[in-house]
Amino acid sequence: MKYNEVKGANRIVKNSSYLISKPYELKNRWRNEFNNNNPICLELGMGRGEFIINMAKQNPKVNYIGLELNESQTATAVSKIGKQDIPNLRLICADAKDIDKMFGREIDTIYLTFSEPWPKPIDEKKRFTHINFLKLYDRVFKKDKHIILKTDNKVLFAYSLETMSSYWYEFKKVSMDLHNDERKIPNIMTDWEIKCNHDRKQIYYVDAIFKG
Amino acid sequence: MKYNEVKGANRIVKNSSYLISKPYELKNRWRNEFNNNNPICLELGMGRGEFIINMAKQNPKVNYIGLELNESQTATAVSKIGKQDIPNLRLICADAKDIDKMFGREIDTIYLTFSEPWPKPIDEKKRFTHINFLKLYDRVFKKDKHIILKTDNKVLFAYSLETMSSYWYEFKKVSMDLHNDERKIPNIMTDWEIKCNHDRKQIYYVDAIFKG
Repeated sequence: MKYNEVKGANRIVKNSSYLISKPYELKNRWRNEFNNNNPICLELGMGRGEFIINMAKQNPKVNYIGLELNESQTATAVSKIGKQDIPNLRLICADAKDIDKMFGREIDTIYLTFSEPWPKPIDEKKRFTHINFLKLYDRVFKKDKHIILKTDNKVLFAYSLETMSSYWYEFKKVSMDLHNDERKIPNIMTDWEIKCNHDRKQIYYVDAIFKG
Repeated sequence: MKYNEVKGANRIVKNSSYLISKPYELKNRWRNEFNNNNPICLELGMGRGEFIINMAKQNPKVNYIGLELNESQTATAVSKIGKQDIPNLRLICADAKDIDKMFGREIDTIYLTFSEPWPKPIDEKKRFTHINFLKLYDRVFKKDKHIILKTDNKVLFAYSLETMSSYWYEFKKVSMDLHNDERKIPNIMTDWEIKCNHDRKQIYYVDAIFKG
């Protein structure tokens, strides 16, 4: 996916009260940052933030952190928040590879929603469900491991089921067609997902756990 | 799926040299029946037998057993074999629930190809990947457990990934679209699958193992 560059993204991001500019300093101290003991959920590659912003608004008793490497996308997320007051939401503009420097064993759930699929075999290591990433996540999960992934990309989905099952994750819920699943799985759509839905492209979903 | 009733099915099946009419008597003795030590693969619900017959023809160094409850379908499989000589193939017309009476720890791979999906929750226990079936299979697998499943049914596929992952199966290979998978997974199509392909209906596939 190509993204538009946002003019003045750096300034927009830096000036947002939602942005944690020095996340390394909060390692093992996120409870203080949120000022409560509620669960903490992390989205890697939040893109323009639709998912994480709406999750935070719908679930005030859960803390949400959206991480995104791209500054323009993060700026768009900041603009989407605008003047809303969402005390259980924070944003980080950084590389997902460094999450072990930002978090101790503090995370309850990692969301991977429409992550870059990197479908070419040569890019396999960049996929957020590559074994190296799964091992990295182990370092930030509080106790049980919990990953919720959705994607419209067949290759990424099949690959993720392979790597996660080989790493002993258990699939509590799988859907081959999230929007038309008879079980009515609660869902917040991203802009991209709305487009997929409009194009009748099915969305794959997995809720994976490993009890620690 | 509705199947045509085959006139004289009982007689056709009984007279086939491929049919094992008393499979209980061969429990722990299938090596003798095949007269070799080659791996033994079992298809549950072989239907009209296209898959198992062609697998047997393509892989003479592997033994194949096709099991089907429906007599008319088994008769169709017998007719498909016709006068061909396929020494590594046997058929059983019986209920899959009784496989532990037919086999000791003798089976290398179980194939579930386009099994009845039983999509209604009330029929869950009839699905060939219900936990009760997975436990039953444990009693006939030689050492490692190995299930290869393909289906065009989203509900059955999602369900199977859930139950198998919760039973610690590891997914060596998953495909959301077997016929268009870039990895070119070897495949023998059934008549039903050819129809799905023609209708551009995608086929789901999983190769699942549990090392014993």
